[in-house]
Amino acid sequence: MSEEDIEQLRSRFAREAMALMERTGEEVTRTRLAAELKIARARLDAVFPDEGDMLEAITGEWFAPKIEVMDEVMASGLPPRRKMYEFFARRFIMLRQNFRDDPATFNLYVEMGERYFEYAQSYIDLADHMLCELIAEAQADGHLPGMDVDLARSVINQMVSTYLMPYNIAMLGDRLSEDKLALIIDAIFDGLDAKDGGARGTGTLGAA
Amino acid sequence: MSEEDIEQLRSRFAREAMALMERTGEEVTRTRLAAELKIARARLDAVFPDEGDMLEAITGEWFAPKIEVMDEVMASGLPPRRKMYEFFARRFIMLRQNFRDDPATFNLYVEMGERYFEYAQSYIDLADHMLCELIAEAQADGHLPGMDVDLARSVINQMVSTYLMPYNIAMLGDRLSEDKLALIIDAIFDGLDAKDGGARGTGTLGAA
Repeated sequence: MSEEDIEQLRSRFAREAMALMERTGEEVTRTRLAAELKIARARLDAVFPDEGDMLEAITGEWFAPKIEVMDEVMASGLPPRRKMYEFFARRFIMLRQNFRDDPATFNLYVEMGERYFEYAQSYIDLADHMLCELIAEAQADGHLPGMDVDLARSVINQMVSTYLMPYNIAMLGDRLSEDKLALIIDAIFDGLDAKDGGARGTGTLGAA
Repeated sequence: MSEEDIEQLRSRFAREAMALMERTGEEVTRTRLAAELKIARARLDAVFPDEGDMLEAITGEWFAPKIEVMDEVMASGLPPRRKMYEFFARRFIMLRQNFRDDPATFNLYVEMGERYFEYAQSYIDLADHMLCELIAEAQADGHLPGMDVDLARSVINQMVSTYLMPYNIAMLGDRLSEDKLALIIDAIFDGLDAKDGGARGTGTLGAA
């Protein structure tokens, strides 16, 4: 098989594995998938030499539509504030829809995401890289003044994490909304900066 | 037994149950606790008529020190911005210490917190009530202009949720810090308000 053939089979088998998980509500193994697809185990092994290869392919399929919307947003001509909102909101809307369509499968992916966190790392790094670009664009417009880009990335991810982390989306449900996310993005653009605004103070409960 | 005696026993047995969970890494039942304490099951049943009563008492013991620091902060004469920082930071520092001291037990409490969420509701309501007071104080000082108090409460809880939700504290570890939390609180005081800052826009990717 050519590289390209293998790539197509990886994607196809990963999607079959996901369909199987949706049906059974359980994590899938290569043995189970081979039985389900009625194909020789050797054929599956040629595509996924070990279980990790299958999990990696499943992770890729899970992230593919999220990467696609992020790419679209980054390529848009929107101003930074609007762009950052869409960058988070479009993934949130997609995740919320995934959850509403099938909460049990969504929770299975959340659990798998915790167990196989390593496979998600490159996608998280990619999203972080795009967010850093967005921060640079915002700073060119006078927002986030004086902030180290990496610090800004970390703090912004924390401020919107209820809209990004699947676990939080499952837990918080209808308490999350586009309107609230927009208020958070506006607070980032209007209130987040490098200077000490006085919140931390001395760390004592004295009024001084 | 008097009401007071029962209250003392509830608290003592709940703490014994927590010590047992720390030792075994497993959720505890009344049967197991009676065996461990070498007391008659009937004696335990007099204090905890059903399993839920024990879980409720354990939840109370878990929240007691958090309520205590919140009360201290609310009673301090700090200005609103400092007060809100301490309101969240002191609980975060306590939770982080709990996690560092014993990650396995911490994760057990996280799981139990998800399963027995109902018992935590009154404590969450109490914390929310205090936060609403803090928001009113902030508004009296000109912050969070025009915001509905309940909307502000919800959005603020979301912005700092990585510092409050035990699951997030376990997941994010050293990526959380007092300095970053202070930046978030400053962004709340300097950038969060009722007016549409333009983040949401029209919801399309057009530049208009």
